[in-house]
Amino acid sequence: MSLTVVGSIAFDSVRTPFGARERMLGGSAVHFALAARFFTHVHVVGPVGKDFDDEHVELLRSRGVNVDDIERVPGGETFSWRGHYEADLNVAHTDDTQLGVFADFEPKLSEASQNADVLFLANIQPDLQRRVRAQCAAARLAALDSMNLWIETTRDALIGALGEVDCAMLNDAEVRMLTEEPNLARAARALMEMGPRIVVAKRGEYGAVLFSEDGFFALPGFLLEDVRDPTGAGDSFAGGFLGYLDMQGTDQPADAALRRAMAYGTVLASFNVEEFGTERIAALTEDEVSERYEQLRSMTHFELSD
Amino acid sequence: MSLTVVGSIAFDSVRTPFGARERMLGGSAVHFALAARFFTHVHVVGPVGKDFDDEHVELLRSRGVNVDDIERVPGGETFSWRGHYEADLNVAHTDDTQLGVFADFEPKLSEASQNADVLFLANIQPDLQRRVRAQCAAARLAALDSMNLWIETTRDALIGALGEVDCAMLNDAEVRMLTEEPNLARAARALMEMGPRIVVAKRGEYGAVLFSEDGFFALPGFLLEDVRDPTGAGDSFAGGFLGYLDMQGTDQPADAALRRAMAYGTVLASFNVEEFGTERIAALTEDEVSERYEQLRSMTHFELSD
Repeated sequence: MSLTVVGSIAFDSVRTPFGARERMLGGSAVHFALAARFFTHVHVVGPVGKDFDDEHVELLRSRGVNVDDIERVPGGETFSWRGHYEADLNVAHTDDTQLGVFADFEPKLSEASQNADVLFLANIQPDLQRRVRAQCAAARLAALDSMNLWIETTRDALIGALGEVDCAMLNDAEVRMLTEEPNLARAARALMEMGPRIVVAKRGEYGAVLFSEDGFFALPGFLLEDVRDPTGAGDSFAGGFLGYLDMQGTDQPADAALRRAMAYGTVLASFNVEEFGTERIAALTEDEVSERYEQLRSMTHFELSD
Repeated sequence: MSLTVVGSIAFDSVRTPFGARERMLGGSAVHFALAARFFTHVHVVGPVGKDFDDEHVELLRSRGVNVDDIERVPGGETFSWRGHYEADLNVAHTDDTQLGVFADFEPKLSEASQNADVLFLANIQPDLQRRVRAQCAAARLAALDSMNLWIETTRDALIGALGEVDCAMLNDAEVRMLTEEPNLARAARALMEMGPRIVVAKRGEYGAVLFSEDGFFALPGFLLEDVRDPTGAGDSFAGGFLGYLDMQGTDQPADAALRRAMAYGTVLASFNVEEFGTERIAALTEDEVSERYEQLRSMTHFELSD
C-alpha cells in the first residue's frame, strides 16, 4: 500500500481570535500527508522555493513521509498564503496569496510516486490534476479536492478531472455550486453522474456526508472546546479518509470501510483545528487517534431500543 | 403520562423557492403537538381569535391532541406570521408579525394541563413562560425554547425562566448569543450553569447536539432530497424529543433514552420540512416514523472495526 498526494507546500500566515502565526509550515499536501501517515506510506509531490528550510523537510521525513518528490526550485519562493478568521471560525478571509514556485509547477513524479495505490489530487488547478492523474494510471483509487475559484474559472477542466477520479471531496457549498443544485443530496447525485462513484461533502464544524452507490452516511464534526485554527482541516480529513482506505488494500471498499474512513477523517480534522497550522497533528500519537475514534463513535451512537 | 405545551397557535403565510401558502395552520404549539402526539397525550394551551376555524381545532382533536385549553378570544385576531426563505433555506426573513390575541394572553391552565408530567414552554415571552411554569409545579420535566428577540429585550426574565426548567432547546446561535461564548461546547456548559441539566442545541439542516451530565451526543440532520418549508422544524424536533421522553415515564431519563429522544426529534423535524406548514406531519403515520427512525440509525451508524 502507498499513497501519493500532489498539492501545495506552503507558508501560512494566519490570524484567528485565538492568536496569530507568521509563515508556518502549511499547504494542502502537508496537512494531508501528516494525517494520512497514520495509516500508510505517503509520497508528497510539490514544489518549494529557496526559502524552504531543511527543517520542514525533516519534519515530514521524521514522521515517515516520503519527501523524494518535493522539488526545490532554485531561486524560487515557496507558495504563501495569508488569511484570517472571524469570531465565527466558519468565516475565513484570504488576505494575500503568492503562488511563487507554484506558478510554473510541472509535476514530474518518481516511479515510486507513480506506482501508488491511492492518489489524492489536492486543491490545485484542474489541468495540473489531470496531468498528475495521467502519470498515476495504476492507482486503484483516485480522489480530488477543488475550490470555488476553479469552479468559476476552469469549470470545463474541472469536469474533465472529475471524469477521471473515483472520489470527489469538496465542501458542501462547492458541491451545490458546481452542480447548480441547491439541495445537497440531489447535488451529490448530479456530481456522481460526472464520474466519481464516491462523493464526500465536507461541512466544516458540522461534519461531513458520504454519498456512494450504497446510499449516504453522515457524521457530525467532533465537538471540541478549543478550536484555534481551522486551516487545513479539510486536507487532514482527506488524509484520514484516504489513508484508512489505502490501508484496506482494495479498490472497492465496502460500505462499512467507507464509514470508518469517514470517522477517521473526522478524527484527524478535529486534531488539526485544535492548534495553529500543523502543530497538533505533527505531534499526534497513534494512541490519541484511536482514543478519539472511539470517542467519536460514542458521541454519535444510539441503540434503536432498550 | 401526559405533556402540556404552551405556545403560539398561528396563521403562517410562507414563501420558499418551492412555492407559497397563505394563512396555513401553524405556530409553535401546533407543530410541537402534531409531532409529540405519536408518543403521548398532548394538551395544547394558547389563544386564538374569532378568525380561527373549527376545522383547525378539529384537525388537532382528530390527531389525538387535547384542545380544551385552546382559548378562543371573542372579537380577537389569531396570531399571524408572514415570512420567506432564500434559495439557501437556512436563511429566513420575517416580513410581518401580528400578535393579535397573543398580545394580552394570560394563560389559565385546566387542571388536566396543570398536572402534566412533561411541560414544554415554546418560544413566547419569558415572563409568560414563568407564569405557566408556576402553574405546572408537578411536572417532572420542564423544557423551554426561546429566540434572539427575548435574549436581546428580556434577558433577565429569560435567565429567570432558565433557572426553573430542566432542559433548554435553542438554536446553536442562540446558545452562543445568550452566553456570549463563541464555542458551542463551552456555551452549552455555561447555559447549564444557569439551571438546565439538559441542553439541546439545534443546528437546522446540520442536526442537533445534546449536552447533559453524561457528556454530549450529536446527530446530523436527516438527509432529504425534497425540502419545501423549514417553518416549525425546531418545534417538531422538540415534540419528538419531549414526547419520547414523556413516554419513558421517568424524571431522570438515562443517557440512552436521551439519545433516542434526539433521534426521534430529528425524524419528526425531517418530516416537518418535506411539505408546507403542517401538511406532512398531520398526515404522518406511526409506521413512517418507525421506518425513518431506523433509516436515521443506518445513516449515522458505524462499527469500530470489521
